[in-house]
Amino acid sequence: MKVGLLTGGGDCPGLNAVIRAIVQRIVSEGGSCVGIPEGWRGLIQGMSRPLDPSETDGIIARGGTILGASRTNPFKFAERDVPALRAHARDLGHALVAIGGDDTLSVAYRLYSMYQMPIVGIPKTIDNDLRVTDFTFGFDTAINIVTEAVDRLRTTAESHRRIMVVETMGRHAGWIACFAGIATAADYILVPEVPIDMPHLIEVLKRRRRDGKNYGIVIVSEGARFPDRDNFTLDEEPDPFGNVRLGGIGTAVAHAIEKQTGFETRCVVLGHLQRGGPPSACDRVLATRLGLAASHLIIQRRFGTLVVLSAGKIIEAPLDESVAATKTLDLTYYDEAAAFFRR
Amino acid sequence: MKVGLLTGGGDCPGLNAVIRAIVQRIVSEGGSCVGIPEGWRGLIQGMSRPLDPSETDGIIARGGTILGASRTNPFKFAERDVPALRAHARDLGHALVAIGGDDTLSVAYRLYSMYQMPIVGIPKTIDNDLRVTDFTFGFDTAINIVTEAVDRLRTTAESHRRIMVVETMGRHAGWIACFAGIATAADYILVPEVPIDMPHLIEVLKRRRRDGKNYGIVIVSEGARFPDRDNFTLDEEPDPFGNVRLGGIGTAVAHAIEKQTGFETRCVVLGHLQRGGPPSACDRVLATRLGLAASHLIIQRRFGTLVVLSAGKIIEAPLDESVAATKTLDLTYYDEAAAFFRR
Amino acid sequence: MKVGLLTGGGDCPGLNAVIRAIVQRIVSEGGSCVGIPEGWRGLIQGMSRPLDPSETDGIIARGGTILGASRTNPFKFAERDVPALRAHARDLGHALVAIGGDDTLSVAYRLYSMYQMPIVGIPKTIDNDLRVTDFTFGFDTAINIVTEAVDRLRTTAESHRRIMVVETMGRHAGWIACFAGIATAADYILVPEVPIDMPHLIEVLKRRRRDGKNYGIVIVSEGARFPDRDNFTLDEEPDPFGNVRLGGIGTAVAHAIEKQTGFETRCVVLGHLQRGGPPSACDRVLATRLGLAASHLIIQRRFGTLVVLSAGKIIEAPLDESVAATKTLDLTYYDEAAAFFRR
Amino acid sequence: MKVGLLTGGGDCPGLNAVIRAIVQRIVSEGGSCVGIPEGWRGLIQGMSRPLDPSETDGIIARGGTILGASRTNPFKFAERDVPALRAHARDLGHALVAIGGDDTLSVAYRLYSMYQMPIVGIPKTIDNDLRVTDFTFGFDTAINIVTEAVDRLRTTAESHRRIMVVETMGRHAGWIACFAGIATAADYILVPEVPIDMPHLIEVLKRRRRDGKNYGIVIVSEGARFPDRDNFTLDEEPDPFGNVRLGGIGTAVAHAIEKQTGFETRCVVLGHLQRGGPPSACDRVLATRLGLAASHLIIQRRFGTLVVLSAGKIIEAPLDESVAATKTLDLTYYDEAAAFFRR
Repeated sequence: MKVGLLTGGGDCPGLNAVIRAIVQRIVSEGGSCVGIPEGWRGLIQGMSRPLDPSETDGIIARGGTILGASRTNPFKFAERDVPALRAHARDLGHALVAIGGDDTLSVAYRLYSMYQMPIVGIPKTIDNDLRVTDFTFGFDTAINIVTEAVDRLRTTAESHRRIMVVETMGRHAGWIACFAGIATAADYILVPEVPIDMPHLIEVLKRRRRDGKNYGIVIVSEGARFPDRDNFTLDEEPDPFGNVRLGGIGTAVAHAIEKQTGFETRCVVLGHLQRGGPPSACDRVLATRLGLAASHLIIQRRFGTLVVLSAGKIIEAPLDESVAATKTLDLTYYDEAAAFFRR
Repeated sequence: MKVGLLTGGGDCPGLNAVIRAIVQRIVSEGGSCVGIPEGWRGLIQGMSRPLDPSETDGIIARGGTILGASRTNPFKFAERDVPALRAHARDLGHALVAIGGDDTLSVAYRLYSMYQMPIVGIPKTIDNDLRVTDFTFGFDTAINIVTEAVDRLRTTAESHRRIMVVETMGRHAGWIACFAGIATAADYILVPEVPIDMPHLIEVLKRRRRDGKNYGIVIVSEGARFPDRDNFTLDEEPDPFGNVRLGGIGTAVAHAIEKQTGFETRCVVLGHLQRGGPPSACDRVLATRLGLAASHLIIQRRFGTLVVLSAGKIIEAPLDESVAATKTLDLTYYDEAAAFFRR
Repeated sequence: MKVGLLTGGGDCPGLNAVIRAIVQRIVSEGGSCVGIPEGWRGLIQGMSRPLDPSETDGIIARGGTILGASRTNPFKFAERDVPALRAHARDLGHALVAIGGDDTLSVAYRLYSMYQMPIVGIPKTIDNDLRVTDFTFGFDTAINIVTEAVDRLRTTAESHRRIMVVETMGRHAGWIACFAGIATAADYILVPEVPIDMPHLIEVLKRRRRDGKNYGIVIVSEGARFPDRDNFTLDEEPDPFGNVRLGGIGTAVAHAIEKQTGFETRCVVLGHLQRGGPPSACDRVLATRLGLAASHLIIQRRFGTLVVLSAGKIIEAPLDESVAATKTLDLTYYDEAAAFFRR
Repeated sequence: MKVGLLTGGGDCPGLNAVIRAIVQRIVSEGGSCVGIPEGWRGLIQGMSRPLDPSETDGIIARGGTILGASRTNPFKFAERDVPALRAHARDLGHALVAIGGDDTLSVAYRLYSMYQMPIVGIPKTIDNDLRVTDFTFGFDTAINIVTEAVDRLRTTAESHRRIMVVETMGRHAGWIACFAGIATAADYILVPEVPIDMPHLIEVLKRRRRDGKNYGIVIVSEGARFPDRDNFTLDEEPDPFGNVRLGGIGTAVAHAIEKQTGFETRCVVLGHLQRGGPPSACDRVLATRLGLAASHLIIQRRFGTLVVLSAGKIIEAPLDESVAATKTLDLTYYDEAAAFFRR
């Protein structure tokens, strides 16, 4: 048995742990693995390279993906790209593991349902916003990075009596901001799921100052929004680079706080720092378990499936249109976080 | 309402997050909190100090417990200590939160069942071996520390073609060793739940060397045991200090490996490093949620209860004799880990 | 003997180590210490609080300054503020230790030379750009933070074949960018001391791609400048918050690289992350040594002095106008760094 | 020009930075490099492998040595090994860079002086105890690891009112213990250069308890010794593994403290943790500068030389018998450290 592996979408700590688990398992069962570089683009172009178990020794501790990733979607230019992709997949081997987010998995679903390609999917996103699974690997690493960053910023905020606004990832869901906000005892947390209540935020920060605490921490999801866009006056133009969002929501919130309270306020945009570096222990365990479960499905030739985390167990799920569904922040968590600032 | 807080048993990252959550919530509901230093000993001796919300600002990031802890059990000298404890508890206020492991919670259960003391319990152990709850805070921090340590040791092991044996905490259960072993792609994992199969361990290490990998990592729970004590020949005498276990199981395993393979082998005992320092994001979130839930029970005067994690939710459980039950490692995890070395 | 301590200017890891050293030494010699909050502003307003050795236990590991800091300059409104400051200084005690950068130390020099105030100065700046001393504490912590951040960014850059531009602190001098650039094997380093040679930067990045390396790291000092401002087209407007420099030089460089090479490029601005959190071992040692030496000068009543690092030794220097002199990057270091990209 | 590189003795963070610097420089000057695995053993056995610049991309952040190391000394079995070594060296190329400690460099010196082998040496030791250079790379990383470990242990020590004894590396010199002791505000520091004064240590710990500080930190170099071996009663037998020193000096000191004060005392032996993992920024810079300077000497064919750090500059030194000289701890540092516990 020959298994092809590809990683699509943004990189995420834990991808290499998945790759290692699959390669080691498949090879120990007598099969072999090849890596397809750069996601679906690699498969369209017929790129591949052997993946040997000895090569995967030690990669569990490395961020990123040794395969490289891309956001190429073969259905964008379907007439040109899909036939090429299918031909290369046939040449390549007996099964394909696609590790990716909603886009990558949606392509996998279409390839499976339209052409019965022998695919097993593994969900991945740093944002934890996939409906199909309870938690995604990469998320725990991200909240640890944000937490450590905010711990650092706390001492400088305190020394200078500043409000520190920290913008985290999370375009569509507030998971990272909410969990990191709880973990850092943030004074306020802004998420896409709850429109920004600027008067309340200001009131909370002023009350804190009255209570003798001369500094504050506000965590903002990059996807948080003012209810009325009119008061989002700073830097409306699009960001040419994506990650450093010029005049993004963090900067706008910081600007508004400083203007309305007179407190010295600074914004830090964590950006790409949140997705790099060694995965946390917990993410490595989850990624490894998913890789093992996917290997098992491949060995059993149970294609058109997905491996997901459900109530602590790794289970099989169908590779269907549900892979595209977004899971916004469970507001139970936000209510827990808000218990500290709502009164 | 006046609430007393105490922390018992070994310290654990996340204790201060619990304390912070309770103090902030109780005070924002109009109540007040006092801290009882050094666990049950403090209550027996009538020690206490006010806990102000402003004092708990920022402690979420600190390891240990600002209250101090002890292993004192008031029922050891019950005639002398229990009446004193009860009198002080009455003076102290309206409710007590006891944060601790099986010992601390067993005392809490007896005080509640015998004397109807108004107690709410919060389970805590770095070893994750309490039956009443799915996961305990402190555990995630511990496995991250072990993982980071093994990542460090990997480069030195590789440079010197050594086998590195790393002894982790876990006297009664292999949770830390198993999770950290998965997270570090250890070549073998030894836990109390599975007797040491020395011939198999040796075979795995030799096979790895034949495969061209000249170094290896073995993770050993401090509670792992040889099936036949006769081959545990090294350093039988008791350790006078507890943590640095002279000739502990890690050293014995390292000794046996070196003797039976000729591979240069070293042992590192991580000991107390595993319980200190800033809690991980995940542990801070869990501890905060438990603190919030406990505050809620106190406000509702639902005493004789425990707050626990069950399938991702914080729920109420009875404070009964089940608090003493040990949860050994779920062997599903060990089987997943062993998929890489069993064949 | 009663000694007043104040910290001025931006905060810097190591300030608490200085404070601890002085308090412990002065008290063990039979003296006492008071802390003056918020730099010169605190002294103008007559604020102070006792500093007890027991309070300084453990602060060596904490970033920021327990005294708080400000950028208030008493000579700005000299007629109003200087007499107030002098009166409070007299009330306060026998000696003053001023820990700060060029501004804080210039004030100290003027107060000493004009009014013979009994002052000892300690130089401090995260940027390492003070002429009076070889290295300043805070610098080593800053370069470690940048290095760890770039290590993280490397895996994500590699996975996505991106150029990653990292903007560091260093408005007037390229110390941080140069040292962190060497430490991270950056592909190019831009510093204020050397005008940006955009054609050469582009050539280096293209050559690297031809050599099969599909990603790159560029480190940019916030003070780096294009020789011709005309090509600095992005975001000319001033940044309302200071630290997150909207359309700062990092973003401009990233923009230019992407435009001229077609390589996907991202910018990360590290900002305040570089000054917070636990000091490195080396910074704690340097700060402690400076604190001890300053205590010694105070005990000997050698006022109008400064303690500095010179060829590995802590020596006494005069508190004179030289404290304002900037030390730009020693180009020997830049040449060493450039050995990897210049040919 | 073809240059062979080898690393000897114990591994040390920064070795890969040296290798990278040399490979990149030599290749950019038109030469080529080969790596000799496992120190002198590799050269005796004629092992070698090409070292390509592309392979050295990113290794600057990795601990250990990609070449592997050994403690083999060709002069031990000189008649057999030296001719083999010389023959292989001739085959190999035009120059040899030997990176190592006193043993490795002594061999290099003998090979150069006896046979005029074209060698350049680079000093390396984590212990910082080489007379020929001011500071060695690896040392800064080691003290940062010890410092971070002690920061962790502080919270657990405080929670349990314990004395924590931390044993560091340093068999012949107290550099690591002294610097880490200053950086962690240790209550006492024991080094090989100063015989242990147990009564004074006990007095300091008791005084601290009287001052209301219920815990303590003692840092002990593995080479520290009691003046009278008779009171070293614990575990006299030799350690079969070397690094985890069963009943080493740390344990003996902990035992003595507990016995003489009644304070609960624990010992943690950091062992191999101190030499693994990513090098600090400062060590990477130093190692890179040494690698560049060595490349320069090779290009100029200035053999029989050594590159060393002297007053902040990298300079050339002769490869002579001085490479074997030990540099014990400069007692100026110890006196500074002791200012906090001597009175």
